Amino acid sequence: MKHNSYFEGKVQSLAITTTAGPATVGVIEPGKYSFGTDCEEHMHVVAGTLAAKLPGGEWQSYGQGQFFVVPPHVKFEVEAAGDVAYLCYYKR
Amino acid sequence: MKHNSYFEGKVQSLAITTTAGPATVGVIEPGKYSFGTDCEEHMHVVAGTLAAKLPGGEWQSYGQGQFFVVPPHVKFEVEAAGDVAYLCYYKR
Repeated sequence: MKHNSYFEGKVQSLAITTTAGPATVGVIEPGKYSFGTDCEEHMHVVAGTLAAKLPGGEWQSYGQGQFFVVPPHVKFEVEAAGDVAYLCYYKR
Repeated sequence: MKHNSYFEGKVQSLAITTTAGPATVGVIEPGKYSFGTDCEEHMHVVAGTLAAKLPGGEWQSYGQGQFFVVPPHVKFEVEAAGDVAYLCYYKR
């Protein structure tokens, strides 16, 4: 299985194939990060709370069980005050 | 963050600190595995379906959003037909 590490190991993920398509489960350690998308992404918070700022939007906070959709080919920002576990689906 | 790899990389996890205590998020690739617990574990299925056999119990299947509790100091078996993402809380 593919193990990815970003931002000097502060964001790490494991690849998974689901019935809803390819996804990653991962952990975001406290900090503020900028990500880019290739395809549409459905980002589900599994544990913790994640703030996200999508293009043209305001900062919004997502708790356990909540998700947000990121359009393809954009940059977006996230900020975690504590550890966050997530499940991200890639809609190719 | 701690990245653990078991069973020749077929089970991998990432450590996380949550408001409910220490936990790991991970992926189980298809196969049958035997685990042992040090403390009570609360195993939540985040994606996919996981069959588990606890001591003295029968095989039971857990889907996305379901969880099972494993007592401390026991061995238990799990079997995955497809990839499974999980969140496991350690109740020390």
